[in-house]
Amino acid sequence: MTQFQKALKKYRETVDAKVDDFCAKLDCRPRVLREGMIYSLKSGGKRVRPIMVLACADMLGVEQERVLDLALAIELIHTYSLIHDDLPEMDNDDFRRGRPSNHAVFGPGNALLAGDGLLNSAYGIMLKVCNEDQTALAAANWICEAAGIYGMIGGQSADLLHENDSCRDEQILDFIYSNKTGKLITAACVTPCLMGGGYFLEMNTYGERLGKLFQLTDDILDVEGSREEIGKTPGKDAKEGKYTAVSLYGLDNSKKKVLSLQQDCLDALEGIDRDTWFFRELANYIAGRTN
Amino acid sequence: MTQFQKALKKYRETVDAKVDDFCAKLDCRPRVLREGMIYSLKSGGKRVRPIMVLACADMLGVEQERVLDLALAIELIHTYSLIHDDLPEMDNDDFRRGRPSNHAVFGPGNALLAGDGLLNSAYGIMLKVCNEDQTALAAANWICEAAGIYGMIGGQSADLLHENDSCRDEQILDFIYSNKTGKLITAACVTPCLMGGGYFLEMNTYGERLGKLFQLTDDILDVEGSREEIGKTPGKDAKEGKYTAVSLYGLDNSKKKVLSLQQDCLDALEGIDRDTWFFRELANYIAGRTN
Repeated sequence: MTQFQKALKKYRETVDAKVDDFCAKLDCRPRVLREGMIYSLKSGGKRVRPIMVLACADMLGVEQERVLDLALAIELIHTYSLIHDDLPEMDNDDFRRGRPSNHAVFGPGNALLAGDGLLNSAYGIMLKVCNEDQTALAAANWICEAAGIYGMIGGQSADLLHENDSCRDEQILDFIYSNKTGKLITAACVTPCLMGGGYFLEMNTYGERLGKLFQLTDDILDVEGSREEIGKTPGKDAKEGKYTAVSLYGLDNSKKKVLSLQQDCLDALEGIDRDTWFFRELANYIAGRTN
Repeated sequence: MTQFQKALKKYRETVDAKVDDFCAKLDCRPRVLREGMIYSLKSGGKRVRPIMVLACADMLGVEQERVLDLALAIELIHTYSLIHDDLPEMDNDDFRRGRPSNHAVFGPGNALLAGDGLLNSAYGIMLKVCNEDQTALAAANWICEAAGIYGMIGGQSADLLHENDSCRDEQILDFIYSNKTGKLITAACVTPCLMGGGYFLEMNTYGERLGKLFQLTDDILDVEGSREEIGKTPGKDAKEGKYTAVSLYGLDNSKKKVLSLQQDCLDALEGIDRDTWFFRELANYIAGRTN
């Protein structure tokens, strides 16, 4: 196991313990609401966003304890967005992370509410953190902006609008990528910066580029991956006439773009006078991922 | 026009101006997201919740200016909940407030996102208020609790679970009412209390009782009202085997309960050493409403 794999594993264990703790303390009624939320929270996600929060905190000397709740809130927001994205009126995907998606198990009404519940709970956590540590307000505002209509929701809306679009356009694709996926990844990167760690601009740039890299590799995996590898139905984007990097640039050019985006990520870290090793390795890892 | 009607009109104008201002400043992309949010925000709602925030602020000597953003946030949360509640996977209602519901105009995918966008925007507003006025944090926490899984979402989930329930039970109905409708109404009542106005317990009790009264009259109107009066398809609850006060107690007993709940609301105000006239009139108004 490389140093990076070890660090990833350790961060992941911290995040999983935090998620487990959140789930254990859930005692909302009716049971189907609680079970739906827990089902998607514990469905084997990679925890990329909260791991980035913790790793950035470590890099910048911000105590993990201070950012852990916000890291959890970001994972809750991410999970809600997946549940809503999978719903029949959106992507209508019955598989997610190798398991039936939330609505395939609990029905679309319950899935809708589990998503709403996760989003609300994320803000409940953020508001409680802000009550105790008012330096968190700037970070919470940023996360909210990233998750909202000028961020993720705007990206999802554009994605839905253009899903069967015959007029393919690089600007639209860029808008969808940077908003639907990029903004929340970026918010995760800069959370510790906003809580006293500094280097906001550098990590913001890194986050934007990593977000694009992440989405690009996602599109490539949709074409090349197996269901076992990617945990959802492969070839689905193309089948639905979905607007992706692969349909716009072709597979070979998309792979070339992976390499240049990977380098852009590394470049963004140049201005940070700390040990950036984890985020360099993360960019390399995302660029080479098979799931 | 009575003094109460004049006051109601004035509060409503203040709320409408605030909503209009919010809508005018929306410049998210794509347009369908913005238009969907505005469509439901400006669809002729009664603005009961934000009006209660303003009236309670006036009663307790809290400046309107300090609570107006939170009042707007509560109206956004209420509006999101209606959009999601009307979706095909939930109540599947194509009419709301006398107009086609959001998904009937924009499609369920866009309606889902418009709802998500309103919820997120509500928290964006609340977090910004908390940045400027940290006494708002307690109120924001309370609103979040009311909107979340231990409040409105829990109530919606129970409503969905029991919609075709043959085993009718007063406790379940009470859980649905107090959570789905009551909690957010109560949060509106106590927002100015939590921002320095005091009388939290009294207004909390009043809000809980008014919430029940509101839902009860809603159920009666579903049986007795016309589409023109209630702005949605009448008789829908019964047709769907929906669990309501009328199906549980019968129409006559439900009407008797209206009178006793109306008195309970007035009783709750007894302990408040201020001029409670508006909230007394409000209870009378809700008890006698026809739309």
